[in-house]
Amino acid sequence: FLKELLVEQEPATVLEMIKELPSEEILIVFRLLPKDTAAIVFTELETDEQLKLLSLFKEEKAKEIIENMDPDDRVELFDEMPANVVKKLLDYLSPEERKQTLTLLNFPEDSAGRIMTPYYLDVKANMTVERALEHIKKVGNTKETIYTLFAIDEDRKLSGVLELKDLIFSDSNTLIKELMNEDPIYVTVFQDREEVYQIMRDYDLLALPVTDSEKRLVGIVTIDDIVDVIEDEATEDIQKMAAVGVTESSYLHTSIWKLVKSRVFWLITLLVLESAVGFIIDGYSEVLQKITILAAFIPTINAMGGNTGGQISAIMIRSMAIGDVESSDMKKIFYKEMIIGIILGSILTVIMALRAFVSTQNIMIILSLSASLLIVILTSNLLGAFLPFFAKKIKIDPAVISGPLISTLMDLISMSVYFSVSTILLKNYL
Amino acid sequence: FLKELLVEQEPATVLEMIKELPSEEILIVFRLLPKDTAAIVFTELETDEQLKLLSLFKEEKAKEIIENMDPDDRVELFDEMPANVVKKLLDYLSPEERKQTLTLLNFPEDSAGRIMTPYYLDVKANMTVERALEHIKKVGNTKETIYTLFAIDEDRKLSGVLELKDLIFSDSNTLIKELMNEDPIYVTVFQDREEVYQIMRDYDLLALPVTDSEKRLVGIVTIDDIVDVIEDEATEDIQKMAAVGVTESSYLHTSIWKLVKSRVFWLITLLVLESAVGFIIDGYSEVLQKITILAAFIPTINAMGGNTGGQISAIMIRSMAIGDVESSDMKKIFYKEMIIGIILGSILTVIMALRAFVSTQNIMIILSLSASLLIVILTSNLLGAFLPFFAKKIKIDPAVISGPLISTLMDLISMSVYFSVSTILLKNYL
Ligand SMILES: [Mg+2]
Ligand SMILES: [Mg+2]
Ligand SMILES: [Mg+2]
Ligand SMILES: [Mg+2]
Ligand SMILES: [Mg+2]
Ligand SMILES: [Mg+2]
Ligand SMILES: [Mg+2]
Ligand SMILES: [Mg+2]
Ligand SMILES: [Mg+2]
Ligand SMILES: [Mg+2]
Ligand SMILES: [Mg+2]
Ligand SMILES: [Mg+2]
Ligand SMILES: [Mg+2]
Repeated sequence: FLKELLVEQEPATVLEMIKELPSEEILIVFRLLPKDTAAIVFTELETDEQLKLLSLFKEEKAKEIIENMDPDDRVELFDEMPANVVKKLLDYLSPEERKQTLTLLNFPEDSAGRIMTPYYLDVKANMTVERALEHIKKVGNTKETIYTLFAIDEDRKLSGVLELKDLIFSDSNTLIKELMNEDPIYVTVFQDREEVYQIMRDYDLLALPVTDSEKRLVGIVTIDDIVDVIEDEATEDIQKMAAVGVTESSYLHTSIWKLVKSRVFWLITLLVLESAVGFIIDGYSEVLQKITILAAFIPTINAMGGNTGGQISAIMIRSMAIGDVESSDMKKIFYKEMIIGIILGSILTVIMALRAFVSTQNIMIILSLSASLLIVILTSNLLGAFLPFFAKKIKIDPAVISGPLISTLMDLISMSVYFSVSTILLKNYL
Repeated sequence: FLKELLVEQEPATVLEMIKELPSEEILIVFRLLPKDTAAIVFTELETDEQLKLLSLFKEEKAKEIIENMDPDDRVELFDEMPANVVKKLLDYLSPEERKQTLTLLNFPEDSAGRIMTPYYLDVKANMTVERALEHIKKVGNTKETIYTLFAIDEDRKLSGVLELKDLIFSDSNTLIKELMNEDPIYVTVFQDREEVYQIMRDYDLLALPVTDSEKRLVGIVTIDDIVDVIEDEATEDIQKMAAVGVTESSYLHTSIWKLVKSRVFWLITLLVLESAVGFIIDGYSEVLQKITILAAFIPTINAMGGNTGGQISAIMIRSMAIGDVESSDMKKIFYKEMIIGIILGSILTVIMALRAFVSTQNIMIILSLSASLLIVILTSNLLGAFLPFFAKKIKIDPAVISGPLISTLMDLISMSVYFSVSTILLKNYL
C-alpha cells in the first residue's frame, strides 16, 4: 500500500514527507521508490543525510541510485563527499560514465562545465520538422529537456538553436535550418556560472548550450539548475557580507564544528584588527583623562562610520553581483557618492551636534564631535563604495568586503580622526 | 539597413545595444523595432528611462507598446509610475484590458496575483492528444507558454496539469485525463511570491497555476519571472540587512535623492539609538577618569558584539528566506547557538586576554575585559539568532534585523556589561 502511494508522488513531495524521518525509515522509503524518483530524491537530500544513507544502503541500491542520477547532480554530490567515498562510488559506474563524471569534476568549481548535462537533444540543420519530431519521440525520453533543440554539424559544432514550439507551429516539411536561430547565445565550459545565470535571466532561456573552446557542443545548462545557482550565489554573498565563511549545507544540517569554523576565522581577524584601535586610543590617554566626555562618544563615531560604509558597500557588492554596475562605472559612482556622503553627513552632523549639546555646553567639544562625524561619514561612504571594486581588481570576491570588515577599518580611521581633531580643537583645555 | 539589423535581434541584445544611448536615439530605435520586441525591450528598461521615453513617444507609439506588453509586466510598470502617468496609460487600453490590469493591480504587492499572466493554455480532460495538439497549433501562439497545459472543467476549475512532452510521447488518441496529474500543485492569487518561488524551485516547474479561492484557474506564473523574483528578493534582503531601504531600480538609475532617502532613515535611527550609549558611558565618567585604559577597549568590546550578532542574524535571516529554518526549529537553534557561542566566546576571550596583557599587567583589568567580552559574545550570539524569529512573529520582515541594528543594540548592552563588570572587579582601584 505504502508502495502504491509512493510510486505516484513527485520527488519534492516525497522529500517533504521523509525530511523529518530517521535514516532507518528513509531507507525503507527508498526501497519502495521507483528508480528515477529515488535518484532525484537522493540528489535533493542534505549532504549529511546522503552520507548516512550511503553507509546504510546495500551496494546494489547505492549503485542503482548513483547510476540513475543526472550527471551534473552526480558531480555536485561527489564534490561534497570525502575522497574515499567518491572512490567507492566511482566503481559503481560504467567505464564510460566514470570517465564522463571525472571530466565534469575536472572543470573549475562554479564553472558552466560543472552544472551542465550532456543529455541534450541534438538535431541536424537539414532535417525536416517531421523527421525532427520523430527523432524527439524516439530519443527524447532520455534527454534533460525536449523544449530546446540544438542543431550541430558533422564536427558536433553548434550551428543553431530552436524551440520545440517552432516545430509545433510549422509545416511538417519545413527544414530545421529555416527555423533555427543561426547565431545562438552559448557559453563555454570554463565560464563562470554567474555569467550563465545573467545570460539566461536576460534572455529568458529554458536551456543554454555549453561548448568547448572549439564551439563543439558538450552540454546544456537548464533553468531549474540556474534557479538553484541564483539562490546559492545570493546565500554565499549574504554570508560573506556578514563575515561568515561559506557552509555548503543548510544551517540545520551543518555540524556545530563546521559552523564554528565558518565564523571563527573572521571573528579572530576582526578582533586582532580591532584591538589595534586600542593602541590609538591608548596614545591619547592624557586627553581622555582631562576630557572624559570624549570617551562617551567613541561608540557613536565608530558606529556611524561602520553603518555608512556598510550600507554603501552592500549596495555596491549586490549591484556588481547582478551585473548592474561594472568597474567602468567607478568614476560616476565616485561623484554620486561624494554628493550623497555630503548630504548624509550634513544631516547626521546636525543631529550629532544637538545630541552633544545635551551632554556638554562646551562649543569646542560639540565642534570636535561634529567635525569628526562629518569626516568619518564622508570617508566611510567613499571607502565602502570603493573597496568592492578594489577587491574585484585584485581578483578577490567583492562580497568579502563585509560590513564588519569595513566597520573595523573605519574604527581605525574614525579614532585617529576623532582624537586628532579633538586634540587640535581642544588644545586650550589640555 | 538599421531596421533590417534590428528586426532579427533578441530583445536582450537590443537592450544591450541601447543601454548607453541617449533617450533621443533610443526613440529612433523604438520606431524601427517590431511591435513585440519593442514591448519586451520597453518592459526591461529602467523606470527612469521608461518615464522619459513615455514623455517623448507619440501617443500612437506609446499605445502600441502598452497594448503589446504582457499583463504582468504592465502591472509592474504601472506600479512604478506616478499616478497621473498611470491614468493616461490606462486610457490606451481597451475596456477589457483596462479591467484586467486594474484587477491585477489590486492584488497585494508581492502576491502571486501580481506576477501571473492570464495567457495560459487550457485544455479539457476528455480531449484526445490529437485534438489537444490541434488546439495548441491554433491558439498556442498567443499564450505565454505551451510547454505546460492546464486542464479545466466546466466551471473553469483546475482539474489537472500536464506537459507538452506528455503529448509528444503519447499515442494520438490517448485522452488528456490519462496523462495529466490530477492532483497538481497550485497557489492562490493572494499567496506570497516567495512561496511561489519555493514551490517552483522544489518541484523544478516551468509554470505554476494560480487559482482564486474557489480553485478557478485565473493565471499562471512562469519560471522566467520567478528568476527575477529570486534575484529581487535577495537584493531586497541584502539591502535591508545593511540597513538600506528598498530602491526599486538599479543603483545607476536611482536618483541621488532616492538613494539618500533609502539610507537616511536608518542612519538617523541608529544615530539616535547609539547616542544613548553615550549616556551609559557618561554615567561611569569617574571610573574612566581613574582607569583610562578602559576607554581604549570600548571599540573592541563593541565591535565584537556587533560582529558576532551580525554573523548569526545573517545566517538565520537567509535560512528563513529560503525556507531552510522555521519558527518550529527555534529550540534546536537555541541549543546549537548556546554551544557555538561558548566555543567562539572562549577562543576570542583568550585572544582578548593576551591582547590586554600587552597594554596592562593588571590582572583585574585583564579579567574585566575577558569576562565582559565573553558575556557580550554569548549575548549577541543568542540575540542575533533570536531577533529574526521575533520579527517574523510580530509580522515584520526578518531581514530588517540588520547587522547595524544588532550592532547598535549590542553597543547598549555591551557598554552596560563592560562598565558594570569593571566597576565590580576593579572596586579596589576606585
Ligand atoms: Mg547535496
Ligand atoms: Mg561556491
Ligand atoms: Mg528575464
Ligand atoms: Mg540538472
Ligand atoms: Mg537540479
Ligand atoms: Mg559569487
Ligand atoms: Mg562598530
Ligand atoms: Mg521597470
Ligand atoms: Mg518588494
Ligand atoms: Mg529545483
Ligand atoms: Mg511574464
Ligand atoms: Mg518577465
Ligand atoms: Mg523578502
